[in-house]
Amino acid sequence: MTLVHPTAYVSPGAKIGKSVEIGPFTIVHENVILGDRTKVGAYCELGLATQLGDGTPLIISEDSLIRSHSVFYESSSFGPGLTTGHRVTVREKTKAGSSFQIGTSSEIQGDCLIRDYVRFQSNVFVGKKTTIGNFVWILPYVVLTNDPTPPSNVLMGCTVEDYASIAAAAIVLPGVTVGYQSLVAAKACVTKDVPPYMVVAGLPARVVGKTSDIKLRDGSGDSAYPWTRHFKRGYPVSITEHWVSEEEKYL
Amino acid sequence: MTLVHPTAYVSPGAKIGKSVEIGPFTIVHENVILGDRTKVGAYCELGLATQLGDGTPLIISEDSLIRSHSVFYESSSFGPGLTTGHRVTVREKTKAGSSFQIGTSSEIQGDCLIRDYVRFQSNVFVGKKTTIGNFVWILPYVVLTNDPTPPSNVLMGCTVEDYASIAAAAIVLPGVTVGYQSLVAAKACVTKDVPPYMVVAGLPARVVGKTSDIKLRDGSGDSAYPWTRHFKRGYPVSITEHWVSEEEKYL
Amino acid sequence: MTLVHPTAYVSPGAKIGKSVEIGPFTIVHENVILGDRTKVGAYCELGLATQLGDGTPLIISEDSLIRSHSVFYESSSFGPGLTTGHRVTVREKTKAGSSFQIGTSSEIQGDCLIRDYVRFQSNVFVGKKTTIGNFVWILPYVVLTNDPTPPSNVLMGCTVEDYASIAAAAIVLPGVTVGYQSLVAAKACVTKDVPPYMVVAGLPARVVGKTSDIKLRDGSGDSAYPWTRHFKRGYPVSITEHWVSEEEKYL
Repeated sequence: MTLVHPTAYVSPGAKIGKSVEIGPFTIVHENVILGDRTKVGAYCELGLATQLGDGTPLIISEDSLIRSHSVFYESSSFGPGLTTGHRVTVREKTKAGSSFQIGTSSEIQGDCLIRDYVRFQSNVFVGKKTTIGNFVWILPYVVLTNDPTPPSNVLMGCTVEDYASIAAAAIVLPGVTVGYQSLVAAKACVTKDVPPYMVVAGLPARVVGKTSDIKLRDGSGDSAYPWTRHFKRGYPVSITEHWVSEEEKYL
Repeated sequence: MTLVHPTAYVSPGAKIGKSVEIGPFTIVHENVILGDRTKVGAYCELGLATQLGDGTPLIISEDSLIRSHSVFYESSSFGPGLTTGHRVTVREKTKAGSSFQIGTSSEIQGDCLIRDYVRFQSNVFVGKKTTIGNFVWILPYVVLTNDPTPPSNVLMGCTVEDYASIAAAAIVLPGVTVGYQSLVAAKACVTKDVPPYMVVAGLPARVVGKTSDIKLRDGSGDSAYPWTRHFKRGYPVSITEHWVSEEEKYL
Repeated sequence: MTLVHPTAYVSPGAKIGKSVEIGPFTIVHENVILGDRTKVGAYCELGLATQLGDGTPLIISEDSLIRSHSVFYESSSFGPGLTTGHRVTVREKTKAGSSFQIGTSSEIQGDCLIRDYVRFQSNVFVGKKTTIGNFVWILPYVVLTNDPTPPSNVLMGCTVEDYASIAAAAIVLPGVTVGYQSLVAAKACVTKDVPPYMVVAGLPARVVGKTSDIKLRDGSGDSAYPWTRHFKRGYPVSITEHWVSEEEKYL
């Protein structure tokens, strides 16, 4: 049964799935589709319309959780299992895949493409025109920029490839690609492309080694990367079994 | 016609202009003046009073837009055309000019002076006693500090001069001046004054060149600075024509 | 007399002290204890329950002030005199002492231990399993991390010892200890332990001197550290007199 708190405003035009819950003082505008079993916390505003939208709705697919004080504009879409922290902001025309997690106070400025199983921790800032691959991890206070000569009309979004990790408080400069299975160290300032499987660190960031040389800090002596060998929390068995079978090809 | 949402609380003492709109669940306290045609989003609280105010009202001039979840204290004033993102915080005794833009989650701690046409993007933090000139750009996650030996009672605000740009995730240390038409690179830590027309970068930041040597990344081969040559979005024609005529003096 | 705004939701199961004030549109869930004379601003949600809690209540002790748009989960406790800025987030199982101040938009991810008279300014991020001593100062946009090889299941919280100061936009890497009365400079990236009484700066941070060699910037010629000699604002006389008597032992 759908539960809309009596203080919430839900437009009669919004399409609300089955067993949806909408919290106190939340506003759902007309041009919104909420998938089955999605929960929206308190003080959220979903589906704001501006001239930056293209008329398409905000689509939040099934089994999503949007925590309190979050703001989503219209004309973006999210696959099943979106989970957000508190006070998230998402502007128009972003398309995200399945099981996206967006940490507290993170902001996505719009016109972004984000694939499946991406994890943002808190206060991640993603400028317009960013592209993010599958299984990417972005830690707190990371900034992905897009204007190479501020202010200008040139917007060069960053690209983050599959399985890359960007550690806390790093920044990626406009147009840069962070490569497949690479690692950006904490506080790094990434001014040029990061090669696949490499670690970069510093200001400006330079290659400091291979990810495969980094050891887990659990005393096991095992390599920390690829992280899919040891970290499976929150992924479905179909995914983690696929990771295992891929590993076995190289044994 | 003024539109106050039925769930909003507007003090009878507040002075509300013509054609003002006040969104759901918003609170406007007594000591507030809202100019004509100003729009205030949902979940905002305007005009909070503390002992840090001086009894003067919060003044939001005409044609302003305050987005949702923002908080403004009393005793600050803003010229016409203020535009904010979501979740902005402004403390007491700041004075800002015309057409100020404050990005999402930015915070101004009070006792600041901000001139005309200043643009803050998201998560800009401005400590007490900061002075910012005209046409300044400050990009996401920039921090302007004021305490040289934390904690202390010595507050040395930063100064940012006209037409300066500070790129993403840079920090300016207490008492430092960022000069006229200068550029602070992304992630720079600015420990001493930045000369006019110069670019600084690094930790600590050093002069790395002249702004006039930086090319636009649009393939034109044109210089990116002064940015007033190529970037006019959002400024009135009277301003952009003035920029053109100033340029022509030097031809 | 307790003042609950008519638009607030307070669970009948919550234990509300004397002379408590609860602001508009605020939600207080069942498993919450609010001490006498505590004030809670607008749009706050207190006592959210998840499987990460242990069933114990959220305890906010007497004489506390929680500013608007803040979110606290259950199973954390705060000593008397907690003061927060706006939009603070605190997750489960954190234990904090007396007179804790948490700046606007700061986040504490849970499982932290925080002693007495700690001051966080705005946008401080504290990862799980962090330990913070007495009289610590943490300035805006500081990040305390915990995952040495993201993503992993190894969580190594940071430790910050008594009277340490961490200046703006610094980061402390997982498992690092910031020593007694030490100072981390603005924008530093602290990759290894900071010795007591020392100043570290840079990326990676290195020891650059003793705190006792840093002068106050007020023209007095006095040393800025230990800061307890000159900075007493907001501490009770019993504390500041103790500081004076400790100093006199060394004269």
